[in-house]
Amino acid sequence: MKEQFVSYIRELQNTITSRLEELDGKATFVQDKWQRPEGGGGRTRVIENGNVFEKGGVNISEVHGKLPESMQQYFGVNDADFFACGLSLVLHPENPFVPTVHANWRYFELYDEKGEIATQWFGGGQDLTPYYLFEEDAMHFHKVCKQACDGHNPNFYPKFKERCDEYFFNSHRGEARGIGGLFFDYLKETDKMTMKQWYDFVTDVGDSFLEAYVPIVEKRKNIQYNTENRDWQEIRRGRYVEFNLVHDKGTLFGLKTNGRIESILMSLPPYVQWRYDHHPAEGSEEEKLITVLKNPADWV
Amino acid sequence: MKEQFVSYIRELQNTITSRLEELDGKATFVQDKWQRPEGGGGRTRVIENGNVFEKGGVNISEVHGKLPESMQQYFGVNDADFFACGLSLVLHPENPFVPTVHANWRYFELYDEKGEIATQWFGGGQDLTPYYLFEEDAMHFHKVCKQACDGHNPNFYPKFKERCDEYFFNSHRGEARGIGGLFFDYLKETDKMTMKQWYDFVTDVGDSFLEAYVPIVEKRKNIQYNTENRDWQEIRRGRYVEFNLVHDKGTLFGLKTNGRIESILMSLPPYVQWRYDHHPAEGSEEEKLITVLKNPADWV
Repeated sequence: MKEQFVSYIRELQNTITSRLEELDGKATFVQDKWQRPEGGGGRTRVIENGNVFEKGGVNISEVHGKLPESMQQYFGVNDADFFACGLSLVLHPENPFVPTVHANWRYFELYDEKGEIATQWFGGGQDLTPYYLFEEDAMHFHKVCKQACDGHNPNFYPKFKERCDEYFFNSHRGEARGIGGLFFDYLKETDKMTMKQWYDFVTDVGDSFLEAYVPIVEKRKNIQYNTENRDWQEIRRGRYVEFNLVHDKGTLFGLKTNGRIESILMSLPPYVQWRYDHHPAEGSEEEKLITVLKNPADWV
Repeated sequence: MKEQFVSYIRELQNTITSRLEELDGKATFVQDKWQRPEGGGGRTRVIENGNVFEKGGVNISEVHGKLPESMQQYFGVNDADFFACGLSLVLHPENPFVPTVHANWRYFELYDEKGEIATQWFGGGQDLTPYYLFEEDAMHFHKVCKQACDGHNPNFYPKFKERCDEYFFNSHRGEARGIGGLFFDYLKETDKMTMKQWYDFVTDVGDSFLEAYVPIVEKRKNIQYNTENRDWQEIRRGRYVEFNLVHDKGTLFGLKTNGRIESILMSLPPYVQWRYDHHPAEGSEEEKLITVLKNPADWV
C-alpha cells in the first residue's frame, strides 16, 4: 500500500504541475528536494508571479522514523515508529475572481514493536476559497467532488462535505474559510471497506482535482478587476492566514515538530491585508460571499 | 488596587494616544467602546493611514465574571470568579526605518468562594520590532527599560529582558520577533515585594513607554525609503503575524474564549507579504537584522 500510494502521489504531482503550468502560460514550478534529518524527505514545487498563479505550491513528502512526542499524545500511543506520505497543494491566483484552492491526500502507518503495521489510514480532501461567489462555480466544484465519491458509497459525499464545512471554519470569526468541498480523515479498514477500497476512493478524489478546479480558472482568469476587488481579495486572504495559523492541525503540527517550514508555509498568500473592523457594503457582491460563508450551502 | 490600576490605564491611554496623534500629525485615533456579554468591556482606539502610523491600536479593557473553562485548566483552579484589566498597544509605522512597537500592562484577580481575593498579579512589558537595525535605537529603548526597572531592583532589568527574548521567539523560524525589551508575568506578593511595590514598578514601566519609543520615531520617520525597503518590511511583518497567531498566548486565549476579535487582531499589520524561501542578500542591512534576531544581544 505504502509503495503504491507513494508512486501515485509522485505521478499525480507531475500531472498536476504540468497542467497548471500549461494553464498559467508564463511561470513554471521551481523544485526543491529536501531531506528530513530524522528520516525521509520531500519534493516541494512552488510557482510564483505567473499569469494566473501569484503564488502556489504542489508538494509531496514521505517521512518516517520515531513518532514525535507531541504526536504520541495526539494518537494515544507510546513510543512507536511511523510512516506518512502525502501530496499537499495550495494555489493563490492573482485575479480576485479566480478562487484559491487547497487539496491534500495522505496515507499514514503506525507500527507495533515487531515492526508490523498496527494501524493505517488515509486522509485528505479538496476545498475551494472564492473571493467573489459564482454559484455555478461552487456547483461545478461540488458536482465533481460528488461524482468522485458516488461510485464508492452514496453516503460519502454528504458526509465528507459536512466534515469539510466543519473543519475549515474560522470559529473566531463565525465563518467558513471558503465554500468547502471534501474533507476526510482516519479512513481505516472496516467490515465494509478494505484498505484497497479506501485507496481507490482517495485516488479517485485525487484524480478529480484538475477537473474540479481547472474549468473554473479558465472561465474566470480574464475577468477585468480593479483595486477594490484586489483589496477585498487581500483582506479575505488575511482570513486564510488566520485559519492556517490558528486552526489548521496540519500546519501547527508541522511548525511544532521541526517540519520543513518553507514547504509548510508555502500555503500562505503572497500579499495580504488586515484592516480594523472591515465590513463590505450592504447588498454588495462582497457581502453576498460573507452570507454564504456564515451559512454553508448545499451545492448539489 | 483594582480601582487604582483601572484609573491608571485609563489615564495612560489618554496620555499615549494624545502624544502619538501629535507625533503623527495627520491621523487621529477612532474610539470603539464595547461591552462583554459575560461582564465588563473595553475602549479600543485605532489609528489608520497616518503620516507616521499606517495602523495601530491602543486599547484598554476591564473584564470580569466566571473564569472561562479553558483558563481554569491554565491556572490550575476550578470554578472561580476573576477580574482582569489592562492596556495593550501595537503600532505599525509606514516607514520601514521606524520600528513597530508593542506594549502591555495588565492586572489580574482570582476570587475564592467568599468573593475575596485568592490570588492577584501584574504582568506586561514592552518590546521593539525594527525592520532595519539601528544599534543606537536598540540601546536607547533598552536603556529606558533599564532605568524604569533599576529604581525597584537591579536584577529586574536583566531578568525581564531575558524573559522577553525567550517569550517573543518564533521557535519555528529559530529567530526572535524583534530586539526585545521587557516581559514579566505573575508578579505576585512575596516577602520582598508587596502588591503596592509591584504596582509602582509596573506603572513606572508604563510611564516610560513614550520616552522609550517616541525619540526613535522622531529620528527615523523622515528617512527616504524605496520599494525594496518596503517589501522587506512587509515580509518581516509576516513573521509578526506568525508569532501573534501561532505563539502568542494572549492572542490565542482571546480568540478561543470569545474575546472581541477586532480589538485583539488590531495587532496585525495592514499590508503583509509571504514569499517562498526568502533570504536577504549576503552582507546586506537586511541580513544584519536577521543575525541579531537569531542571537539576541545585550544592549546596555
